[in-house]
Amino acid sequence: MFNFDLLATDAGARAGLLHTPHGEIPTPVFMPVGTQATVKAVSPRDLHDLGATIILGNTYHLYLRPGDERIARLGGLHAFMGWDGPILTDSGGYQVFSLAQRRTIDADGVTFRSHLDGSEHRFTPEKAIRIQENLGADIIVCFDECAPPDDHDYNVQALARTHAWAQACKAAKRQPDQALFGIVQGGVFPDLRAQSARFLTRLGFDGYAIGGLSVGETKEEMHGMLEVVTPLLPADRPRYLMGVGTPEDLVECAARGVDMFDCVLPTRTARNGSALTRTGRINLRNARFADDAGPLEEGCTCYACTHFSRAYVRHLIKANEILGHHLLTLHNLHLMLTVAREIRQAILEGRFQAYREAFWRAHEQAA
Amino acid sequence: MFNFDLLATDAGARAGLLHTPHGEIPTPVFMPVGTQATVKAVSPRDLHDLGATIILGNTYHLYLRPGDERIARLGGLHAFMGWDGPILTDSGGYQVFSLAQRRTIDADGVTFRSHLDGSEHRFTPEKAIRIQENLGADIIVCFDECAPPDDHDYNVQALARTHAWAQACKAAKRQPDQALFGIVQGGVFPDLRAQSARFLTRLGFDGYAIGGLSVGETKEEMHGMLEVVTPLLPADRPRYLMGVGTPEDLVECAARGVDMFDCVLPTRTARNGSALTRTGRINLRNARFADDAGPLEEGCTCYACTHFSRAYVRHLIKANEILGHHLLTLHNLHLMLTVAREIRQAILEGRFQAYREAFWRAHEQAA
Repeated sequence: MFNFDLLATDAGARAGLLHTPHGEIPTPVFMPVGTQATVKAVSPRDLHDLGATIILGNTYHLYLRPGDERIARLGGLHAFMGWDGPILTDSGGYQVFSLAQRRTIDADGVTFRSHLDGSEHRFTPEKAIRIQENLGADIIVCFDECAPPDDHDYNVQALARTHAWAQACKAAKRQPDQALFGIVQGGVFPDLRAQSARFLTRLGFDGYAIGGLSVGETKEEMHGMLEVVTPLLPADRPRYLMGVGTPEDLVECAARGVDMFDCVLPTRTARNGSALTRTGRINLRNARFADDAGPLEEGCTCYACTHFSRAYVRHLIKANEILGHHLLTLHNLHLMLTVAREIRQAILEGRFQAYREAFWRAHEQAA
Repeated sequence: MFNFDLLATDAGARAGLLHTPHGEIPTPVFMPVGTQATVKAVSPRDLHDLGATIILGNTYHLYLRPGDERIARLGGLHAFMGWDGPILTDSGGYQVFSLAQRRTIDADGVTFRSHLDGSEHRFTPEKAIRIQENLGADIIVCFDECAPPDDHDYNVQALARTHAWAQACKAAKRQPDQALFGIVQGGVFPDLRAQSARFLTRLGFDGYAIGGLSVGETKEEMHGMLEVVTPLLPADRPRYLMGVGTPEDLVECAARGVDMFDCVLPTRTARNGSALTRTGRINLRNARFADDAGPLEEGCTCYACTHFSRAYVRHLIKANEILGHHLLTLHNLHLMLTVAREIRQAILEGRFQAYREAFWRAHEQAA
């Protein structure tokens, strides 16, 4: 049911094919984020048209609203949201630890207050797995602690919890049609990252997520951690870099052996009125676009770029029209999915290094 | 370029075909409202998929933002909003007169303050035509005064202005590829309505709008006015009932000889979290839908009803997700467009009276 074929490697980058109960996922892949059982501002048919092959759901949000048990009664997350392709759910850990003053951690789990109504809840490794079983995603992940990246002592303690919880999650998992990923933590500390990669590999998972990055550390620190971690992970399992990132990140992190990516950036940026492009971001609220008859991004083949001008999208954003958010979301997701597909094709054809150089050359020319 | 073929009549109802520079419009027709150069929460390709054959634009809103001259520079409203089918623009009169304390009327026009930034502007018949020429819709309408429906003395004065302005609009119109509709006013007063229909018919227009209804009067009053007006209008010109209405209104006003309808109801209702159905409205915020696996409306063939449950749409609305507004808008527009198509088919097949009776019987059974 769950299997990963590594098809080609090229200068550290990998092209693969991930088999899941709801379909195949060519990697490297960008996974649009569907926090509350919808990728914001687009429909499942839009996602299919865009060529999305897997999307994310957020355990914390779905547990609180509409409730994982309700989703289970309604046939699981795939049926509930009308998406018949693969889904990955996170463990809720990232959101719960983001609640700051609203949560307390102990050895067995986290007690927290809902951001919706202040009600008290508790997540343990077993609970996080049970919720993810109710949701029924193809890929579920271990409950982990996402610690501040640069406090070594704290990361030592947090990593001990994360490892104990990884064992507990593996023991708690019951559904044979769900793959379970371990999550490597350890902040920006090579020793802790290496320890985590080794511990989790020994424990053995269907794939390995790399968490706790893109949370404030520098790009160099993030790349350094990937260079420590990915060589320690088994080659025949997919690696998922959580919460990353930009088109630039896809290129640079694929170069360091990452297979799977997710980020709210394309959808959140769209709702803020900005378009991602291969060479940076443009904010459509800027007055210079008021009479701009050109597309969001020259050469882009998405629905927004082939049918509408920057002037029109700017008007929609200024007028707070839903269609503005929709069109920018389509464009931004199209770009991320296209860059991931281009990276894959370049790896398969043994020209990834040339692709990467051309990508950055275009950046320099635009600057 | 502009022509109306009356194809069949059945018990007062009419089926026709309206030819415009951007395509043919089978009538009776429901026209989705695209106030700010977008039908809220849907894209032009959605509108095509729904079978919309003509949409509306609002002169007042487009004049203020992004500006009719800007739209003209960008190729006109069709190109600007990426809709290649027919468009009708209103004159701005209805919005300007709705500004209440923010406008002053004189014999030649209206001076008003923008609802966006308080800046002062003035609309005259000539100005309203010039703006509509910049926008470039297939059908434009005369600048008129939409008066409170039940003050006879005031309606006498307002009607004199509306008629003088109709003459001025006809004289000001320059583009041969735009059809101009006169607007019948006169509140709820049969004498004024008859006077207005006769005056405008004598003046001669490509079609006749009926304004100042569905603004607070009873259904009986509205139906009464239609029964006065439509027999006085030329049979070979389309009649457009402005700002109406519900599925029930389509049936009852088509029965009284109306060919064209527009209303914000389906799109506005959607954004308020409600679905229109053939037998009334349902509010998805209602807790009874939380576990309801059924479609918004049983038997409906729209994308929302064939792919998603009431429970899911309710979740989206509760979570304030754009997809909720999108799906409800698709459903509500689908219903209005479908009912209009059903009415037309029934008229063409000489069974409109039976259709109308069955429509109301379903209502009684649901009640």
